[in-house]
Amino acid sequence: MSFDFDQAMPYASNTLYGRLRRDCGPDWYAYVEHPFVKALGAGTLPRDEFLAWMVQDYLYLAHYTRAYALLIYKSSSVPQMRSAADIVHGLLNSEMSLHKRQLAEAGLSAAEIDEVPETLETLAYSRYILDRGMSGDMLDLTVTLAACLAGYAEIGLRLAETTTRQKDHPYRDWIDTYAGAEYGGHVRQGLGRLEELWESHGGPGRYPMLLKQFREAVRLEAAFWNAGRSALNQSNPAS
Amino acid sequence: MSFDFDQAMPYASNTLYGRLRRDCGPDWYAYVEHPFVKALGAGTLPRDEFLAWMVQDYLYLAHYTRAYALLIYKSSSVPQMRSAADIVHGLLNSEMSLHKRQLAEAGLSAAEIDEVPETLETLAYSRYILDRGMSGDMLDLTVTLAACLAGYAEIGLRLAETTTRQKDHPYRDWIDTYAGAEYGGHVRQGLGRLEELWESHGGPGRYPMLLKQFREAVRLEAAFWNAGRSALNQSNPAS
Amino acid sequence: MSFDFDQAMPYASNTLYGRLRRDCGPDWYAYVEHPFVKALGAGTLPRDEFLAWMVQDYLYLAHYTRAYALLIYKSSSVPQMRSAADIVHGLLNSEMSLHKRQLAEAGLSAAEIDEVPETLETLAYSRYILDRGMSGDMLDLTVTLAACLAGYAEIGLRLAETTTRQKDHPYRDWIDTYAGAEYGGHVRQGLGRLEELWESHGGPGRYPMLLKQFREAVRLEAAFWNAGRSALNQSNPAS
Amino acid sequence: MSFDFDQAMPYASNTLYGRLRRDCGPDWYAYVEHPFVKALGAGTLPRDEFLAWMVQDYLYLAHYTRAYALLIYKSSSVPQMRSAADIVHGLLNSEMSLHKRQLAEAGLSAAEIDEVPETLETLAYSRYILDRGMSGDMLDLTVTLAACLAGYAEIGLRLAETTTRQKDHPYRDWIDTYAGAEYGGHVRQGLGRLEELWESHGGPGRYPMLLKQFREAVRLEAAFWNAGRSALNQSNPAS
Repeated sequence: MSFDFDQAMPYASNTLYGRLRRDCGPDWYAYVEHPFVKALGAGTLPRDEFLAWMVQDYLYLAHYTRAYALLIYKSSSVPQMRSAADIVHGLLNSEMSLHKRQLAEAGLSAAEIDEVPETLETLAYSRYILDRGMSGDMLDLTVTLAACLAGYAEIGLRLAETTTRQKDHPYRDWIDTYAGAEYGGHVRQGLGRLEELWESHGGPGRYPMLLKQFREAVRLEAAFWNAGRSALNQSNPAS
Repeated sequence: MSFDFDQAMPYASNTLYGRLRRDCGPDWYAYVEHPFVKALGAGTLPRDEFLAWMVQDYLYLAHYTRAYALLIYKSSSVPQMRSAADIVHGLLNSEMSLHKRQLAEAGLSAAEIDEVPETLETLAYSRYILDRGMSGDMLDLTVTLAACLAGYAEIGLRLAETTTRQKDHPYRDWIDTYAGAEYGGHVRQGLGRLEELWESHGGPGRYPMLLKQFREAVRLEAAFWNAGRSALNQSNPAS
Repeated sequence: MSFDFDQAMPYASNTLYGRLRRDCGPDWYAYVEHPFVKALGAGTLPRDEFLAWMVQDYLYLAHYTRAYALLIYKSSSVPQMRSAADIVHGLLNSEMSLHKRQLAEAGLSAAEIDEVPETLETLAYSRYILDRGMSGDMLDLTVTLAACLAGYAEIGLRLAETTTRQKDHPYRDWIDTYAGAEYGGHVRQGLGRLEELWESHGGPGRYPMLLKQFREAVRLEAAFWNAGRSALNQSNPAS
Repeated sequence: MSFDFDQAMPYASNTLYGRLRRDCGPDWYAYVEHPFVKALGAGTLPRDEFLAWMVQDYLYLAHYTRAYALLIYKSSSVPQMRSAADIVHGLLNSEMSLHKRQLAEAGLSAAEIDEVPETLETLAYSRYILDRGMSGDMLDLTVTLAACLAGYAEIGLRLAETTTRQKDHPYRDWIDTYAGAEYGGHVRQGLGRLEELWESHGGPGRYPMLLKQFREAVRLEAAFWNAGRSALNQSNPAS
């Protein structure tokens, strides 16, 4: 692929995030160029797998929101609290509502979704973030959350580039959401806050540990693309 | 005083909250009829003590907000998360902003307030709530928060009753805020959620422990009325 | 199988634990009669799979110990703290040391073990316990830990019954550990504490939620038997 | 006083701890040379105040132990866990038992002690440590705990120097405990671990925040010397 990270996300390149991303090496590409992502971009991803994945993503988002609530709790100033509270507000009232509306259009009611069991991929990733967030400080938590936040922008921009002329792409909405200016603005702000925390809470000795947990999050993001298939296999064990 | 709790807060009387309040006995009245409260109602409370107290109340509110963020984290459903997130939003964007505006009118800048050390009363009460909230479950946390939430409505209504004809009362704004319909609505909702948690998480065996931590919160509320005087004594050790 | 739970663990039958176990229905048997357990009992479990599983079990135990440290933190009396601290001490100085010695005999050094990545099964189960334990109270935490604690005694006793005459059974040590009197004593004490917590913190409204998280732990225990095979597949992706 | 810190605790001088202690300036001396400490050293401290203080110190130690349990939970390696677990073990089975025995000799039963209410000083200090420990990482927690750990060694050594010839000193046991080789060994180990954490988790940007919370702990230590008198005033409100 011809995707140029430095051009697409120039604000992210010479930052702690850029360094973490580069130092993940092949693990990073196993995430952002995962077969699920490629099939989604090619429009060949089966609809039922996408929907099953989206249900898991909805279940995941509830815990992702809890992680940002933890960031409010861990804040040491009111502006920090306010910034994390804005994200909680946006997740609950915008991103999660959007998921639920899209799933409703596909015929899944809110009550049905809440009854779907979480797959191993969903449990492992969401609870890993919460555990690192509770054990560590604001910087640990923010680093662990960054793989999801900024990775989805990169994936959106990658897919937008290759699918830009396909107006009737089956996953147009999904791609446009993560390639869009609104999501991009959230990412820019989030990485800005990460950089500030690296100034106030960082230090050379911390980098190996931060890379380790960022890499684990990236590895769990890659595994999470299989959550839809896992869910389908669980509910149809005979197939 | 002729204050009639059952008439003023009829929704609170036959509830877990009503039972906890009654079982506190004299500790409850040491809080809601504290000399500070009486002086505030009589309009004789020195302005500098009120302002010093309000600065401590502002510092307290930051931790009170962190406790509601913890409630989001501890929620087991999205509606529960949304309800706690609304409170966080209201505290950060309305109640705390109001405090800061009033303190600014009195000549204290935001930067000055952040530099004021927390008194023992402020530290003890706010961190006690957070500790019980982290150690226990949603019910423990909500019970510990209820002494502040609902006690202030009772105090507001008590003072409103006796000061209703004094338009130029020096603490008119403060009394009207906590006696008002908007704050009353928050209290009604909060106690409704407490009742739901008592149904879903309660049990006869839990009551003694819940009463113990509610009573401790009430005791710390009573002590907190001295926070302004403590702050003044700390900054003027010679006086 | 002819295993008789009421006879083998009479102290556990008419308890909260007995009720939770029964109400899990087939999920319980998917855990204690898992193909891995049957192959272990039959002596046909491949050695490399057992060792790979044991490495994951060692990694899991570190987080299981963290969960008991959380129980110390969440305790509301010194005797409760002491009881949880004894378990932490035993896990760190006895059970984990035993694992490490057995793995060393099989040729795996301590440094090698620490470098093994956790599988999804290990991450999902261990972090689920920690998350429920942090979100809930002592009862939530103790219920979530009980599936592991008491299930292993049942599995040990089941396997002991069918393998009792095979002195040279390849997994003799493992079976004897969990069927043994020492482990049985820990389980009896642990379930005794669970019963006390059900008295002091329980209530009819709590049961559905407690069952839900106990069942999730049981489901994750069943999945955890695959952790060895997952680890082998990860390290030999070509096979 | 002629106390020479660099000579008495040479291992502590050129460390993060030494720097934090120096940068506290007069706040440090308000703690280690507090009137209570001087009266204790002079043997003029009233017995009833000392005993009331010791009861509060016992109540404080329970939460101090919870903070070390949190350190086990927050550890990222088994040796770190083991080191924190040893402290938990020592606190529960040695230091707290010693307190209880001394209080029993003075006529206070275990049941009586547990019923004593915590003073504001006890609540504020113990819960502040737990809150900073939960919000921050292992380094934040260890720094906040260091004021108590190492300050008591310095106080013990200071008092030992001036009272060394008084065999029948009324507080001989107390002074000898904290001036003794065993306690000194704990402090040396604890500060060694702090130094390691400063290497692995530190950084120049973190120092101001670490100093702020160390200074707050020092300030709360100074206030804690009044806990005995506060307790006596609470139980005899008329006096």
